[in-house]
Amino acid sequence: MASEFRERRRIEFYETDMAGIVHFSNYFRFMESTEHAFFRSLGLALHRDEGQGMTGWARVQASCEYQAPLHYQDEVEIELRVREKGRSTLAYDFVFRRVDAAGATGAQGASAPVARGALHVVHVARAHGGRMQAAAMPAEVARAIEVAPTLETPTRP
Amino acid sequence: MASEFRERRRIEFYETDMAGIVHFSNYFRFMESTEHAFFRSLGLALHRDEGQGMTGWARVQASCEYQAPLHYQDEVEIELRVREKGRSTLAYDFVFRRVDAAGATGAQGASAPVARGALHVVHVARAHGGRMQAAAMPAEVARAIEVAPTLETPTRP
Amino acid sequence: MASEFRERRRIEFYETDMAGIVHFSNYFRFMESTEHAFFRSLGLALHRDEGQGMTGWARVQASCEYQAPLHYQDEVEIELRVREKGRSTLAYDFVFRRVDAAGATGAQGASAPVARGALHVVHVARAHGGRMQAAAMPAEVARAIEVAPTLETPTRP
Amino acid sequence: MASEFRERRRIEFYETDMAGIVHFSNYFRFMESTEHAFFRSLGLALHRDEGQGMTGWARVQASCEYQAPLHYQDEVEIELRVREKGRSTLAYDFVFRRVDAAGATGAQGASAPVARGALHVVHVARAHGGRMQAAAMPAEVARAIEVAPTLETPTRP
Repeated sequence: MASEFRERRRIEFYETDMAGIVHFSNYFRFMESTEHAFFRSLGLALHRDEGQGMTGWARVQASCEYQAPLHYQDEVEIELRVREKGRSTLAYDFVFRRVDAAGATGAQGASAPVARGALHVVHVARAHGGRMQAAAMPAEVARAIEVAPTLETPTRP
Repeated sequence: MASEFRERRRIEFYETDMAGIVHFSNYFRFMESTEHAFFRSLGLALHRDEGQGMTGWARVQASCEYQAPLHYQDEVEIELRVREKGRSTLAYDFVFRRVDAAGATGAQGASAPVARGALHVVHVARAHGGRMQAAAMPAEVARAIEVAPTLETPTRP
Repeated sequence: MASEFRERRRIEFYETDMAGIVHFSNYFRFMESTEHAFFRSLGLALHRDEGQGMTGWARVQASCEYQAPLHYQDEVEIELRVREKGRSTLAYDFVFRRVDAAGATGAQGASAPVARGALHVVHVARAHGGRMQAAAMPAEVARAIEVAPTLETPTRP
Repeated sequence: MASEFRERRRIEFYETDMAGIVHFSNYFRFMESTEHAFFRSLGLALHRDEGQGMTGWARVQASCEYQAPLHYQDEVEIELRVREKGRSTLAYDFVFRRVDAAGATGAQGASAPVARGALHVVHVARAHGGRMQAAAMPAEVARAIEVAPTLETPTRP
């Protein structure tokens, strides 16, 4: 059972805006990317389109708090934690940290958080021509993912 | 003094994803676009880069709740309301409504909300090579923008 | 029969990059948007997804030449001209011009070109689970769209 | 002296569109990303903003030909080759190949090309408040990058 995941990515030029920093909307794309990598790391698919209809995970709520900007070429570590799990729903918390360039020791450490985010998602199914409707999450997802233990120093006080 | 603003836009093909709906990150771009149009409607600039440094409005917090999807070619009406105003900060609430195609009467009405969002922004200044720091909002902004009256039927119960 | 179309749009903050100008990839989104507005102006649909399969217009080739940058809040006029038309294919040329703010006369004129682009597209159909394959364009498209007359001063010498 | 570079990336959900494939505009972002990784691999910076002004590489021309679509979660290999080098200009050719999943041997091979692209870029400098102007490329770039040898089977006949 998995409840946490981390991955790193490098900020692209096309993810910046004229203020010289990463555009705030891109943090939501980064969260999605980490969520999908979390599923992939467990051998799970987030989205299926199989001829007779589509299943996926619709976004119900998304939020982000920005503490410090990210810049072009920054390496950022994104940590996902599963906060809630229902019959058809999952809620994730995310922490974004900038990875500091290696010093003399060669060690690379993640900085203090530069942003925190959250996503609430619901598993949905849709027959062709029909509407998306909430549906119980697949059994293999329910077996593979669990709620993360509460941190002693809570990330969202 | 202005406290509300509405604009309409049509959903572009490139704003959709493989689920056949508008990607959830784009709602944040739509909020920004409406915020900028609100400023422009008042003759105000949101972002200045004037040789000796930059001033702008950094995003501190962004959130969105999704009630129903938006699709390619949908016309959407975005309503902005000013919820809070500080010395250097503004908070906006947004409501997204799909515009129903004109019927026999030729009237075009906005639907029930399909999404609700919020942005908290802070006025910042940065000298070249320096860090962005919070700064009192320009006097012309403080004169032009005020908090919207509370709705009798609250939009965020 | 139509062979030309023009529309205007205002550059959004989120369309800029850290060089302070519109990111070059966005011109391709602008071309798509104008192509779709051209179809819409003729009562035609560019993309259909009707339960038994999908039809659309796949991009075969795309190009753009950049003469001068576009900036935040610039108003830009995009002109589409139909250059070629085959059984299942269309080729468009595009010219991007910045719209100069109204002067004393109140007139708004389009500037010299800031960019020129081209798209080659092919009408495709796909059964569910199948591959996209070229298919003759719908009869209503073939009836509505024709090749534009050659300009005396060619736009692509 | 370097004249070629390859990198791999995985297609993100947010890079797809409602046709279920990667949006054609994103190939231009992928080319930029590979160009920047090429520079980074040589210890070179593509963009500088140093208080007294900005230098960078403006796009003069961009093009892409699409042979087969890319889908969500595809791994794609992008090959860059330097085609031309002038005093202030570089021209790159790109080939996109889908990486086939490992078979019984564990080997991962790149497919036939799914797309080919090209970028022409010019080194530019801009003083604050001024216009971007072509400028000789930095000496360290001129020393590090050279034109790739012609392929016996040319990639762009």
